[in-house]
Amino acid sequence: MTSTAFTDLEIAHMLADAAGAAILPHFRRSDLNAENKLAEGFDPVTIADRAAEQAMRVVLGEHRPDDGIWGEEFGQTSGTSGRTWVLDPIDGTRGFISGTPTWGVLIALSDDNGPFMGIVDQPYTGERFVGSANGADMTGPMGSQPLRTRTTSNLDQAILFTTFPEVGTPQERAGFESVASQVKLARYGMDCYAYALLAAGQVDLVIEAGLNAYDIQGPIAVIQAAGGVVTNWQGGPAHDGGRVLAAANPNIHAAALDILKNA
Amino acid sequence: MTSTAFTDLEIAHMLADAAGAAILPHFRRSDLNAENKLAEGFDPVTIADRAAEQAMRVVLGEHRPDDGIWGEEFGQTSGTSGRTWVLDPIDGTRGFISGTPTWGVLIALSDDNGPFMGIVDQPYTGERFVGSANGADMTGPMGSQPLRTRTTSNLDQAILFTTFPEVGTPQERAGFESVASQVKLARYGMDCYAYALLAAGQVDLVIEAGLNAYDIQGPIAVIQAAGGVVTNWQGGPAHDGGRVLAAANPNIHAAALDILKNA
Repeated sequence: MTSTAFTDLEIAHMLADAAGAAILPHFRRSDLNAENKLAEGFDPVTIADRAAEQAMRVVLGEHRPDDGIWGEEFGQTSGTSGRTWVLDPIDGTRGFISGTPTWGVLIALSDDNGPFMGIVDQPYTGERFVGSANGADMTGPMGSQPLRTRTTSNLDQAILFTTFPEVGTPQERAGFESVASQVKLARYGMDCYAYALLAAGQVDLVIEAGLNAYDIQGPIAVIQAAGGVVTNWQGGPAHDGGRVLAAANPNIHAAALDILKNA
Repeated sequence: MTSTAFTDLEIAHMLADAAGAAILPHFRRSDLNAENKLAEGFDPVTIADRAAEQAMRVVLGEHRPDDGIWGEEFGQTSGTSGRTWVLDPIDGTRGFISGTPTWGVLIALSDDNGPFMGIVDQPYTGERFVGSANGADMTGPMGSQPLRTRTTSNLDQAILFTTFPEVGTPQERAGFESVASQVKLARYGMDCYAYALLAAGQVDLVIEAGLNAYDIQGPIAVIQAAGGVVTNWQGGPAHDGGRVLAAANPNIHAAALDILKNA
């Protein structure tokens, strides 16, 4: 039975704390490189990934035993409540193995309508971006503040992020580039941190393809609570992953969607 | 006359502290975007850039009046000592205006042979990477540790960084891509933070073009003190900027240089 000792939001913070504690000892380890896989055949990023998801599953087993879990590492565990915790312990493993603080712990709580609470956590920089029915806020090196997306309405004033220049399939790349060619600035390589920056009012658009549900549900909840819009490239729900368009507001979303729809 | 109350390294730390204090109030300000230039015609990144260089020049005027200064914002001030402080208050302004903690304060102390002491500082994450004749170390969210570059010797095991997929001229881009096609992983968008990661043993190569002296002298000093090699694409000194190849060790440097030389 779901414990009432902690709110869902408190549980979400406990999950992020547990994941960060499990991951940080493995981040920027000097032996964390391809020549140095450990004896059992896993590299440190895989070990950290699994340890973090296990740590989160322990918290949920204790406090939310009736909820389902869908984790990147250990798959789906069904529940009876109709609610599911969607977990990506380390989103951005390429960033992780490169030492960049652009990876994150992604946590969402979802029902049939998609995620309604979420966290994007960067344990190394100490930044946590949270969205829920109570609104959106972040804590970080400069303290706590509310999250609010930008009001940019024209593409020629927009800052656009994606992870890799190649984006996805050649067709998806062409779709991305047709938007990129119209914005003020396109930047790369930020992994899930780009979604946090969108929620924080620093950038206007994030366009990606080939995502899994656990890559995007946490960001969706944070961005929507901060005033943004996240859909697929046809304007439909994005919580199953695939091609994702995240935007700071309905106007800039519509401008980018007009282009992507025909991609 | 040069004061002996502080060592050069202490002065370098004072410069980084002064710059960070001048910049941070302007980072991630909600009005820091193109629609919102201030009345006097400068955007906040320019204001922060100038305030930081001015703050550093005050420190040098007090403690190192005989040394020259070469700053990105206010140009060259000649000295009588034969030594020059080379300053880039905010390297990575595109990262800065996007909210990414990939920009940095770059500080070098140079003589005719190039930089022999340097700092790459990221005030938001609280990371400072330092190189001098005393060696190289960093301080950050996880404490202090020595910097040591990696031993990767083969390109197919290497992680390569550059700032923009477009790199420089079409010819320079082709040179970059001829190396990128042979490495394990190529990543983008890290600005000067990529050099810090190289010094910290997280990545193997950084290749850029079109740099100014103040973009690279701080990184050169840090990387060399950590065991790395930085040259131009012909294998000559890189401290005047231009096309730069930074590598974790002589072997991986030679492997990349072989390709770039013919670019």
